[in-house]
Amino acid sequence: MKVKDIGEFALIERIAEIVEHADERVILTIGDDTAVVRPTESGYSLLTTDLLVENVHFTLDTINSWQLGYKSIAVNISDIAAMGGLPNYAVISLAMDPETDVDQIEDLYRGMEDASIKYGLRIVGGDVTKSEKLIINVALLGEVEEENLCRRSDAMVGDVIMVTGELGASAAGLRLILNPEIALKVKEAGALKRAHFLPEPRVEPGRILASLGINAMEDISDGLVSEVKHICEASSVGARLFLNKIPVAKGVDKVATLTGERAIDIAISGGEDYELVFTAPKELNGLVEKAMTAIGTRVAAIGEIVDISNGIKVIDWSGEERPLEVSGYTHF
Amino acid sequence: MKVKDIGEFALIERIAEIVEHADERVILTIGDDTAVVRPTESGYSLLTTDLLVENVHFTLDTINSWQLGYKSIAVNISDIAAMGGLPNYAVISLAMDPETDVDQIEDLYRGMEDASIKYGLRIVGGDVTKSEKLIINVALLGEVEEENLCRRSDAMVGDVIMVTGELGASAAGLRLILNPEIALKVKEAGALKRAHFLPEPRVEPGRILASLGINAMEDISDGLVSEVKHICEASSVGARLFLNKIPVAKGVDKVATLTGERAIDIAISGGEDYELVFTAPKELNGLVEKAMTAIGTRVAAIGEIVDISNGIKVIDWSGEERPLEVSGYTHF
Repeated sequence: MKVKDIGEFALIERIAEIVEHADERVILTIGDDTAVVRPTESGYSLLTTDLLVENVHFTLDTINSWQLGYKSIAVNISDIAAMGGLPNYAVISLAMDPETDVDQIEDLYRGMEDASIKYGLRIVGGDVTKSEKLIINVALLGEVEEENLCRRSDAMVGDVIMVTGELGASAAGLRLILNPEIALKVKEAGALKRAHFLPEPRVEPGRILASLGINAMEDISDGLVSEVKHICEASSVGARLFLNKIPVAKGVDKVATLTGERAIDIAISGGEDYELVFTAPKELNGLVEKAMTAIGTRVAAIGEIVDISNGIKVIDWSGEERPLEVSGYTHF
Repeated sequence: MKVKDIGEFALIERIAEIVEHADERVILTIGDDTAVVRPTESGYSLLTTDLLVENVHFTLDTINSWQLGYKSIAVNISDIAAMGGLPNYAVISLAMDPETDVDQIEDLYRGMEDASIKYGLRIVGGDVTKSEKLIINVALLGEVEEENLCRRSDAMVGDVIMVTGELGASAAGLRLILNPEIALKVKEAGALKRAHFLPEPRVEPGRILASLGINAMEDISDGLVSEVKHICEASSVGARLFLNKIPVAKGVDKVATLTGERAIDIAISGGEDYELVFTAPKELNGLVEKAMTAIGTRVAAIGEIVDISNGIKVIDWSGEERPLEVSGYTHF
């Protein structure tokens, strides 16, 4: 059954059946001019939006609809996590070819709903319309306590630069997806692909880190070095990154060998890890490690914030220091 | 100069220069993972989103970039107005061909910003990315007092159905735009085209109507009869609409004559008027008229809400009653 066979209103009804889950803070959900929710009672509201276009940001040849729905919500939640915040409400815009199977749209929404439930988000409204290519826009409303807000511009000279988790798995997974001829054990390949298709935003680590009093924080969407550069520019500081301290995800080295790259380059430039990179006063170092260990999240100190006059330097295994070459993702 | 010549970050800087205007409630605007704003202190938050795709919702052959920006904000504000609310913050997603002139994108944002300033909205963030066709998604956060919220489902049997302004101008303007051979006086044609390109959302009338205690309210995006049908379905009521009471905008009759249609059909089915249709207890009728007159907004009583068993009927000039045939816009 195609979207054009059931029409706009029946499609919205089907979507509403998938996404509605009870919540005393949601006054009106799908089916009026706007969604109506209770505002957060204290602190700040966080507002973010993200547009995904078929054959630019994804291709349905490699990702299935459920995964695409899950990922589109997860990456937006990651932006909220990077502020130290909690995701609350989402509105979804969806444009599709009227020839699209209704099943496919329902799977997409099931993926969105599954990611939403996992992270305490409620999808409360949206827009459906037509276009040649599939287009998904997620707009997300979250909240954060005033004292917990982690700005990109909050890094201080002397801060330790730290990162959650391990890097490079998503980028290595993408290489496997685009080059099926790369031979890797099924289980290893599966883990890397999963990192690419189903990133897990670091909401809980972000909340804890923010409450401990860390300074600047970003989620790693464009690649570690690109995010560190953003922090340095916004904070008017420099940075030193130690390559031997950067946690490279398992299996990235094998993919790198097969593609003729260095694993460390995939890890620091690959992007879409959706881990958190943050800067913290030195005296918080131990506390941060304890807190992250307590929730099973790996954390590593990978560098330090220095005066802006030093620029951004990368220190190689040999101890050699060289200026950072940024190769993060840009859209044009 | 093309978008690809300056790249993503320079484009975002240019956009930030156009849209940033001071506001003590905006904590962080363009340039971090999310926008940060102070939440409304009382009442409900309103959240809405709208996706516009080139050659589906607009063509740049007929609308210029400034107009497109203005309209894309105005139609979203209209959804907030229909709840009795005030628009507060917007985040904009924009996808464009990298070959697009930077001037064109700046004009688009100037249009968005001009509409935003006019209605007290602040653009606080967004996303820019690439695609073959121009894609605009507006997500909007507003607020309304609990007691003022006007749901689609709030119509009561016995209510008078009323409408602000005059109908059909936007649809008649669209006919002129699509058929340049239709000969109309320049001034008349200009007014109709303007109604199509630059709709004015009825925020102030919506606020006043909501505060007076009207019941259901909708903005007219898909056409009057379509909106009345939505109200009836959501409220489980029927309706009687008197064709001779419906205020038809000036010039619609001339266009109708030239296209071989009836002016009343353009007025009740055309859509995109962004006037408000609402239902009010009979005893509020006089008060509503006085209040609207006081702010220079025309208002007309065009029908009545009846029991659901009566269905939705249209009463012609002859007094003949017939079931409503809905011909509002649907997307598939």
